Amino acid sequence: MPPTPVRFDAHPDTYRHWTLSVDGAVARLTLDVDERGGLVEGYELKLNSYDLGVDIELYDALQRIRFEHPAVKAVVVGSAKEKVFCAGANIRMLAQSAHSWKVNFCKFTNETRNGMEDASAHSGIAFVAAVNGSAAGGGYELALACDEIVLIDDGSSAVSLPEVPLLGVLPGTGGLTRVVDKRGVRKDLADVFATKADGVRGKTAVDWKLVDATVPRSRFADAVAERAAAAAARSTRPDAAEGVALTPLVRDESDTRIAYTHVTVDLDRAARTATLTVGAPTTPAPVDPDAARREGAAFWPLAVTRELDDAILHLRTNENTLGTWILKTAGDADAVLAHDAFLAAHADDWFVNEVRHYLKRTLKRLDVTSRTLLALVEPGSCFVGPLLELALAADRQYMLDGVFEDAPDAAPAELRLSDANFGAYPMGNGLTRLRSRFHGDPAHVEALAKHLGEPLPAAEALALGLVTYAPDDIDYEDEVRIVVEERASLSPDALTGMEANHRFTGPETPETKIFGRLSAWQNWIFIRPNAAGPDGALRKYGTGQRADFDNERV
Amino acid sequence: MPPTPVRFDAHPDTYRHWTLSVDGAVARLTLDVDERGGLVEGYELKLNSYDLGVDIELYDALQRIRFEHPAVKAVVVGSAKEKVFCAGANIRMLAQSAHSWKVNFCKFTNETRNGMEDASAHSGIAFVAAVNGSAAGGGYELALACDEIVLIDDGSSAVSLPEVPLLGVLPGTGGLTRVVDKRGVRKDLADVFATKADGVRGKTAVDWKLVDATVPRSRFADAVAERAAAAAARSTRPDAAEGVALTPLVRDESDTRIAYTHVTVDLDRAARTATLTVGAPTTPAPVDPDAARREGAAFWPLAVTRELDDAILHLRTNENTLGTWILKTAGDADAVLAHDAFLAAHADDWFVNEVRHYLKRTLKRLDVTSRTLLALVEPGSCFVGPLLELALAADRQYMLDGVFEDAPDAAPAELRLSDANFGAYPMGNGLTRLRSRFHGDPAHVEALAKHLGEPLPAAEALALGLVTYAPDDIDYEDEVRIVVEERASLSPDALTGMEANHRFTGPETPETKIFGRLSAWQNWIFIRPNAAGPDGALRKYGTGQRADFDNERV
Repeated sequence: MPPTPVRFDAHPDTYRHWTLSVDGAVARLTLDVDERGGLVEGYELKLNSYDLGVDIELYDALQRIRFEHPAVKAVVVGSAKEKVFCAGANIRMLAQSAHSWKVNFCKFTNETRNGMEDASAHSGIAFVAAVNGSAAGGGYELALACDEIVLIDDGSSAVSLPEVPLLGVLPGTGGLTRVVDKRGVRKDLADVFATKADGVRGKTAVDWKLVDATVPRSRFADAVAERAAAAAARSTRPDAAEGVALTPLVRDESDTRIAYTHVTVDLDRAARTATLTVGAPTTPAPVDPDAARREGAAFWPLAVTRELDDAILHLRTNENTLGTWILKTAGDADAVLAHDAFLAAHADDWFVNEVRHYLKRTLKRLDVTSRTLLALVEPGSCFVGPLLELALAADRQYMLDGVFEDAPDAAPAELRLSDANFGAYPMGNGLTRLRSRFHGDPAHVEALAKHLGEPLPAAEALALGLVTYAPDDIDYEDEVRIVVEERASLSPDALTGMEANHRFTGPETPETKIFGRLSAWQNWIFIRPNAAGPDGALRKYGTGQRADFDNERV
Repeated sequence: MPPTPVRFDAHPDTYRHWTLSVDGAVARLTLDVDERGGLVEGYELKLNSYDLGVDIELYDALQRIRFEHPAVKAVVVGSAKEKVFCAGANIRMLAQSAHSWKVNFCKFTNETRNGMEDASAHSGIAFVAAVNGSAAGGGYELALACDEIVLIDDGSSAVSLPEVPLLGVLPGTGGLTRVVDKRGVRKDLADVFATKADGVRGKTAVDWKLVDATVPRSRFADAVAERAAAAAARSTRPDAAEGVALTPLVRDESDTRIAYTHVTVDLDRAARTATLTVGAPTTPAPVDPDAARREGAAFWPLAVTRELDDAILHLRTNENTLGTWILKTAGDADAVLAHDAFLAAHADDWFVNEVRHYLKRTLKRLDVTSRTLLALVEPGSCFVGPLLELALAADRQYMLDGVFEDAPDAAPAELRLSDANFGAYPMGNGLTRLRSRFHGDPAHVEALAKHLGEPLPAAEALALGLVTYAPDDIDYEDEVRIVVEERASLSPDALTGMEANHRFTGPETPETKIFGRLSAWQNWIFIRPNAAGPDGALRKYGTGQRADFDNERV
C-alpha cells in the first residue's frame, strides 16, 4: 500500500533519485535511483527503474527549470549509472499495485512527459536524452519525450519497448504513439521493435528513426554536450538571469478540508464529493513583469495554479472514491480580470509565459481527470476569463438564476468572457474549451466573441449555451443534490469512459491519442487476466515461469 | 453458445427480422424482430432488440440496396412495431456472452453503421430514420448512423442512451462519438442525455440536436415520406434501373480449409494461423461497365471482395484463437492490374463505384481486425495495385528475395504500385496505407509515385520501404517460422492493443475514434467487475436488484 497521502512536494535539496545541475544555458537532469527509495514497500528500484516517487521528483525538477532557471535553454536528461540509462517503470511495483494505482501512475507520468514537450514547444527548452546504456520501456519513453536522443554505441546498449514481449502490457507512457506519430517510425518496423525484448541498437536504431545518433563511448559526452549547446543556441528562450523561487506550498489540513492560500478543498466522504473553491486575487495586478517577479510564488496566477495543481494530484491519487468534483470560485471578478489582462499584456515576458503555460497544463489535467466535474456558479463567484475555463472544463455547469433566499442582498452571479477563453489555454486537442463545446456550431464561438467583457447573468449565460442549467433558488439546491446523488449511484467505470469521450470532440493530437486511445487500451490490458491475473505476464515476470495466456483474440 | 460456425449469408427472402421493400427511388428497411429468432439460446429479442443475427440481415440488406437496387436514392429505416423503434442490443444476450463475443459483436455492428454513412457519402444513398417510438441505446445509435432522424411526437416516445445509467457500460455502437462529433451536441447536454435513462423527446430533442424533427403521429408517415423524397431528389446517385444480383457465395469447406472461387483459407490450429490466399482474375477485364454487369457477381473485383469479406467475418467470429493471419496472393499480376485499370477508368459508373467502395470497406475491416497480419510475398504472387493494399494493411511484410530452392525456375516475386495505392482505398483515418506507412516521411510517398507500374523485386521493394524484410531462400522460411511462433507466444491482448495503435498514425476521424478510443474504453468497461462481474450492472439488469459497484475511480 502507498503511504496515505502521497505528497507531490519535492525540492532538489532532498531528491533521492535525481540531481539537477545548471551550468549557464544547459541544465543536467541526472537519474541515479536509490534502489531502497521506493514509495511503497515490496520492491527495489533496480537499474534506474522508477515508481511514482521518482517521477514526482522529475516533475518538480521540470517546474524548477521553467521557473527558477530562466537562463536554461537546453536540458540533458542522463543517468549516473554505468551502462544503464533507465529500465522504466518498476515491474514489481506494477505487479503488486491495484488497477487504479497503475492507471493513475501512468496518467501522471504521461502528463510529466507531455510537460517536457510543452517546455520545448512553448518555453524554448530543448531536451537531449543522453542514453548512456540500456533504455528499456519507460526508460526509452522518457527519451522519446525529449527532442533528441543520443544513444551510446558500445556494441550492447539498446533502446527497447519490452512491455509486449515480456510483460503482456503496452508501454504505458506514450511509447507506441510517439514511436509512430512523433518520430515517424514505419509501422512495420515499429511492430518489430515493440515485440523485440532486447531492442534495437547502433545504426539500425538510427535508420529506423528510433534515435537521432549513436556515438562511441569515447565521444559520447562531447557529442551530447555539443548537441545541448547547439540546441541552446537555437533556443527562442529569452536571456533571463533571475528566476522565481517555487517556495513550499502551504496547506492547512483536516480530515474534511484542505485549505491552501487561494484554493480550498472540502471533502464529503458520505456524498463522495470534493468541492474545490478557487479564490480570486486579493491584491491588485502588478504594474509590470518585474513587479510580478518580486511577488514571486505569491503572484496570484502562479500561486493559485500551483495550489490547484497540487489539489488535483492529491485528490486523484489519495481520494479516488470521491467520484465527483464540484468546482466553485469565490471573490472579486474584477481582480481576476485585472490579472488576466496583465498576463495577456505581458505574454512575451518569460515569467508570464511560464505562468500562462502552467495554468494551461493544469487545466489540461482537469480535462483528463477521471472524475465527474460539476461547476456551480453562485453569487459571490468569479467565473470570468481564466477561471471561466474551470467551468468550461466541467461536464456540466449549474448557475443560480438570481440569489439564494437566505442571502437576498447578494449580487447574482455573472460570467464574463475574456480573451483568455479564445486561445490562451487550449485543451490537448488544440481547441479552446469554447471551440470544443460548440464543435457543432463554430459560428457561435465567433458570436460569443462579441460579448467579451460583458457581465452575463444566468438567463443570458443559459441562452448563450455557456451553462447547462440555470435554475432559480426554488429548484437550484434540489437539482444540484439530485445530480450529485445520481453520479454517486452510477458505475465509476462507465462514467470515466463516457466523460473521456464527451470531453474530446473534434480533432485528435498525439497528446489526446495518448490519453484517449493508448490509455484506454492499456486500461483494458491492465485488467485482463493475461496481464494481471495470477498466471498473467505481469505476475510471472522474473519468476522464471511463463505466463499462461488465454489465446482468444477479441 | 453461438452456433458454430456463425454464417454471414443472408437473403431478403429468408430474413426473420427485417423487410426490404423498394418503391422507385425510395427503399424501406423495416425492423420487425422475431422475438424467438435469436442466434443463440437464452434470450428473447423483445422490443425490436437485436443480436448478431439481426445485424447480419441488416448488413445484407445494405449491400443489396447498393448493388441490386441502383435506382434507390433514399432509405427509410423504420420499425413495424407499435410505439417501438428499436431497443438496441439485447441485454440478456450481452450479459450471457463472453467478453470476446461482446467485443466482436460491437465491431461488426460498428462496421455496418459506418457502412451506412459510407453509402450516404459515396453512393448518394440518404438514410432517414423514422423513429416511430422509443429508440434506446443501439436503437438510437442506428438512427444516429442515418442522415436524418425524425422522431414521433406522441408525448412519450424518446431517444435515449441508457447504457451508462442502466447497464454500467457505454453505448457500444458509436453513440457517444456520433452525438458530439457528428451531430454536434454540446458536451454538457450530451452528458445529461447519456445519463438520463428515459432519454429526451419532443422539442428538447430537436433543440439539443439529438434529432432533426419531431412530428405528431397524424403527420409522421407523410413527414418521413417527404423527407425521403427530398433526400432522393438531392441525391447524386445516377439513375440506373438494372442492378447486379449478389448470388450466394460458394464455399467448399473442410476442417482445415475453406475454398471460395478466388480466395482460399487454410487453417492451422496447431500454429494458430489462418492463411488467406487471394487469387488473381483468370479472365480478362471486361470491355465496359455493361460487360462487367453482365459478369455480375462473378466480376472478379466484386467476387474476390465478397469472398474476402466473408472470410474475414468468418475467421473473426468463428476462429478467434487463430491469432495470426498470413496474407498471400497468387496468380497473374497483369490480370489484376487490367482489372484495376478498368475500375479506375470507369470509377464514375455506379456499379464500378460500388465495387471500389466495397473493396475499400473490406480492406478497412482488415485494419481494425484484432489479429496479427503478416503478408508473405513469394514467387507466383500478385501483390500489385489493389492487392498490394493487402500487404500494406499487414503489420509486417516478408518478401522472398529470389526463388525457393525447390522451384528454381519460378520468376521471383515483384510488387507493383498503381494509382490504386495513392487514393482509391483510404483507411478509416482518411489516409492511404502508403501515406500512413510513411507518416514520418510524406515526401517518400511522392517519390514512390515515380515508380508507378514498375516491377519491384525484393531488393528494390526493401529499399523503397515497401516490405519489412527480404530474406533469401536460405533464411526466408526460418524467419517466417520464427515470427509466427513468436506471435503465438505473446499476449493476445497486448498484441491487439499494440497493433491498434501502430496501424493508425496521424489524424483521427469519427470512424477511427469509434474503433480506437470508444471501443477501447468499452473493452475496458466490459471486462470490469462493475459491468460484467456477478454483481455488475450488466448481470443485475432486469433482476430488480441494484448493481454493487466498487466506487473507486481510476
